[in-house]
Formats: sequence, C-alpha cells, structure tokens
Amino acid sequence: MADFNIHILGCGSAFPTTRHMATSQIVNLRDKLYMIDCGEGTQVQMRHMRIKFNRLNHIFISHLHGDHCFGLPGLISTLGMLGRTGDLFIHAPKGIEDYLQPILNLFNKGLPFRIQLNQIDASRQALIMEDRSMEVYSIPLNHRTPTCGFLFAEKQKEAHLIREMIDFYQIPIKCLCQIKQGADYTAPNGEIIPNNRLTLPAEPAKRYAYCSDTAYFPTIIPIISNVDLLYHEATFAEAEKERAKETYHSTAAQAAEIAKRANVKKLVIGHFSARYEDDTILKTEAIRVFPDTILAKEGLVLPVE
Amino acid sequence: MADFNIHILGCGSAFPTTRHMATSQIVNLRDKLYMIDCGEGTQVQMRHMRIKFNRLNHIFISHLHGDHCFGLPGLISTLGMLGRTGDLFIHAPKGIEDYLQPILNLFNKGLPFRIQLNQIDASRQALIMEDRSMEVYSIPLNHRTPTCGFLFAEKQKEAHLIREMIDFYQIPIKCLCQIKQGADYTAPNGEIIPNNRLTLPAEPAKRYAYCSDTAYFPTIIPIISNVDLLYHEATFAEAEKERAKETYHSTAAQAAEIAKRANVKKLVIGHFSARYEDDTILKTEAIRVFPDTILAKEGLVLPVE
Repeated sequence: MADFNIHILGCGSAFPTTRHMATSQIVNLRDKLYMIDCGEGTQVQMRHMRIKFNRLNHIFISHLHGDHCFGLPGLISTLGMLGRTGDLFIHAPKGIEDYLQPILNLFNKGLPFRIQLNQIDASRQALIMEDRSMEVYSIPLNHRTPTCGFLFAEKQKEAHLIREMIDFYQIPIKCLCQIKQGADYTAPNGEIIPNNRLTLPAEPAKRYAYCSDTAYFPTIIPIISNVDLLYHEATFAEAEKERAKETYHSTAAQAAEIAKRANVKKLVIGHFSARYEDDTILKTEAIRVFPDTILAKEGLVLPVE
Repeated sequence: MADFNIHILGCGSAFPTTRHMATSQIVNLRDKLYMIDCGEGTQVQMRHMRIKFNRLNHIFISHLHGDHCFGLPGLISTLGMLGRTGDLFIHAPKGIEDYLQPILNLFNKGLPFRIQLNQIDASRQALIMEDRSMEVYSIPLNHRTPTCGFLFAEKQKEAHLIREMIDFYQIPIKCLCQIKQGADYTAPNGEIIPNNRLTLPAEPAKRYAYCSDTAYFPTIIPIISNVDLLYHEATFAEAEKERAKETYHSTAAQAAEIAKRANVKKLVIGHFSARYEDDTILKTEAIRVFPDTILAKEGLVLPVE
C-alpha cells in the first residue's frame, strides 16, 4: 500500500443505478483521511470499505448538487453517535450553510463536536486548507452551478537520516531535526559534514487533482499540470457530445484531452451517466487520446505515485 | 404474488452497517405503491428491488430522525429527473416542512411536480389518507420525538360476479356495478334474484400495521388488534432492556408481547441495533412469546394475507 491513496466510494452520476453509487472519494495520506464529495449512501460505502470514521477531519464538497452532498446529514449524525469530539471541517461553495444549518438545527441539537463551515469562492484558485502534510487548492470548474475541483498537494517530506553516518559522527539527537530539514552538521572539532553525506533525499511530494463536475474546460490545465493522478469526470461518450455541452459535463475523450494537455501521469475517469450499462466504451474513447486511463469503480484504491 | 405485499427496503437502526440499510418499506396493493419511511439509500434499494418509481404517490414518514427520512431529498430529485408530473404526497409529523422546504428551495427549483406536505398530529389516531382502495390511519407511538406508526386498511373489495348466473338471467351490464356492491336483481318479469345467487363474496379486506420507533406501548393494542400483519420494531434483545427503555425502543420480547396481546396473525420485527452481528437472538426471544414471528430482511417481500 502506498503512502498516498485514493479510495473510490462512488463514481456514478445523479441518477441512481445498481452499478454505481453517488460521488464520493477518500484521499488517504498515511492514514489521515480527507473526503471529497459525499453523495447519498457514502457512510454505508465507508462501512463496506472499512474506512475509519475517526480519521476523517476534512470534507471537501465540489458543488451543491444532491449527488455530491446528500450523504452529509447521515454521515454527520453517525459521527455524532460515534462520540466524535474534534471539529469537523466542511469546505464547500457558498450555499452549504443554507443547506446544512436547518438540518443541524432539526436533527443534531446535541452533537458532541463542532462543524466548521469554510465557504469557498468556487470561481478562483486558492489555498483552502493546509495542515502538516497537505495543502488543498480549489480548481475553478465550469458547471451549471458554482463548482470547484480540488488539488491535493502533499508537502515535501523531510530527508531520511543515514543511521550509520549519524552514529559514526555521534551526532546529538537535538541536531537531527535540522539535519532532516537540510542543515549541514558542524562537529565539536569544527569539521563541517555536508548534509548530503548524512541524509538520503525524501521521495518527491505527490499531487492529486479531482475535477468533477465540469464541461470541457482547458482553463484548468495550468493548475493541474504534471499531477501524479488526475480524476476527471467523463459523464458521456462522444455520441452524447451535444448533451455533454448542454448539461456542462465532459465526454471521456474530453477528459483524456485535458489529461494529455496537462501532461498528467495517470488519468482516472468517473461520474458515468446511468445510460451506460457497460462503461468500457468510455475507457475505449479516452484511451485513444490518453493511453494511461483507467475507469473508476466502487471499492477501487488508487495509489498516487 | 398476493394482492397486498410489504417490500422491506431497509430494517436497520440509526447506525449504518454492512448488514442492514436504514428504514424504508413499500406497501404494494395491486401495484399501487405507498412508501413508509425513507432512510438514506432508499432510492438505491428501490433500484435493486426493481420497485417502480412512477407507481409511488404517497410517502409516510413516522418521525423526523435521520434514519427514517434522510433518503427523501435524493428520492425527490430522482423523481424529478424521471419527469414525474403528478403530485407527490408526503405525510409526516410536524417539522417536515422545516426540513424539506430549504432543501427544495436550494436543490429542486425546477421540479416538474408538486410536493404536497400533510403535517400529521402524531399524538392521535386519525385517518390521514384515503384513496379508492386504501385507508391509512396514524398510530400514536412513544419515542423520543413525535412519532406515529401507520395502519394500512384495505377497503372492502366488491363481490365477484358469478358469470354463469349473470348470463342465465341475461342481466344488463349497467346493473352489474350495483350487484357487485350487494344489490339484488329485479328481472323484467318482476322476479327478485337475491344477491347471494349472483355473486361470491370478495376476499376479506386486509390490514397491515407498522410500528416503529417506539418503547413498549400497550396503548396501541386496540388500534392494531387482529391485523393480518404487524411490523414492530425490536431494536434490542432482553439483555439490553434498560437501554431500550432509556432510548424509547423495544426489545424483541416486548414486540412479541404487543403482537400476542393484539392477537395479530403474524409479526415481523425489524429496526435491529447494529450491535447484533446475527439477529437470530432477537427472533429466538420473540418466538418464545409469539411463535409466528419472522425477522425483517432487506429484499424480503411479505404477503399480507
């Protein structure tokens, strides 16, 4: 299992089917969990996929369409029953308060934790969350209602100490923190040991971009350029290109075009229209444009590497 | 398949598990559908059980706890996408408007059908809906919030005409309607043919009672007396009797005691606590008191006969 993984909880579009659940994903960075979107049934999918509820502190909602947020009230109630006490942060476009506050007032009067709503301006790229290991940026998208994607950028990790060298120079523990961050070491006799003799470089920081729902929108390309993994919606096949345009969704080929132009490492497509009994057509059409494309699927765990 | 069936969509309690869905049932009388409760995931269960969305006109919500109504917004959105035009009636205790109206305003501006909210006084027994084939009465229950069960009473059907006798007396078509309703027939020569020579009696009308969530509450016994099928919640086993009392829920034995005292024909228990990996203990404890008890289960179709 990689350090940084994406768990697909649901990758269908608005209309319910027996094949796909409504949209939700878990970004898992060394067992710290971030949720993206929370369609109806998300909490049950979490159970099925054995996702730990208590590891989740941040939920990012891309837009206020039901298939991306109707699972929030149930999940919040369950977190309350589980006795959560730490704040839960919900980052979402304006309107989230009008949606959630009346429900919280009616159903969750005695909630043992606080909900911190962070209303995002979905129309611009901005840093919307930062913790010790991750930065999350909004990605403005082009849908029927204010919508943004999210760029999850892992922070650069510290270098690895070379145990044998630390022992050889008898470096005191108090100096190790600075060395991990790149400092040279000055021995008691004045000798300077350069950092590159004491450490091995950390793995490069990884980035994951989530873009749903959106029409074909090349404006996002500089933001998601070179990411390690891109999730892009692919609601329709080329035959429904007109329908995609009307509804501000993308075709699989358009998703692949974005991936290609942004030079991403790997593409995963999702948000499949209920009309496709078999999503293979979407994969086939995407692969013609961007070969390293896979289909999202409930239960799939994708490494960001 | 009987004329009158109950489809169990979900029979778990508030806490989500991989074994049970949140509460919802479909009452199906000759393909006319009535929904009772609508927990999160109900619309997906409808898909799995091939329940026809367009046959549903009335939804009855027992109380405003999330596990009984958090599936409504998603179901309403889906009915809209399906192009429904006929009114949808939602019968629920007071508060339903405060819950649904803000969601409808935010998510369902262009809904192609009207939602008629019928706010029920959950504290009294009353006729809350009547159509050509069914009467539905509220059953006051004893829970932490205003809650009522529902008694579905099929209307007495018309008698069956005996084809041979109708032909023998050459009875005109225009007289048949009254004969089916019990009238005698007066032949052109003045001879009176008594109704019982022309018809066979209809099957007796059937009744189904749904009681969830509630503490042990014998007040309901006269209302549900002699019903053909009783659904009663049985959240806990006897070992958790104190917990049942505190949370205004019932044990399986208490559900069976209600069934026995009300002299119902058959009992189905549900709303099982997530603590039971295997619900058999609940069945075992209920059967000791009322032998004709079965466990609810997702996907089960129970005839009311």
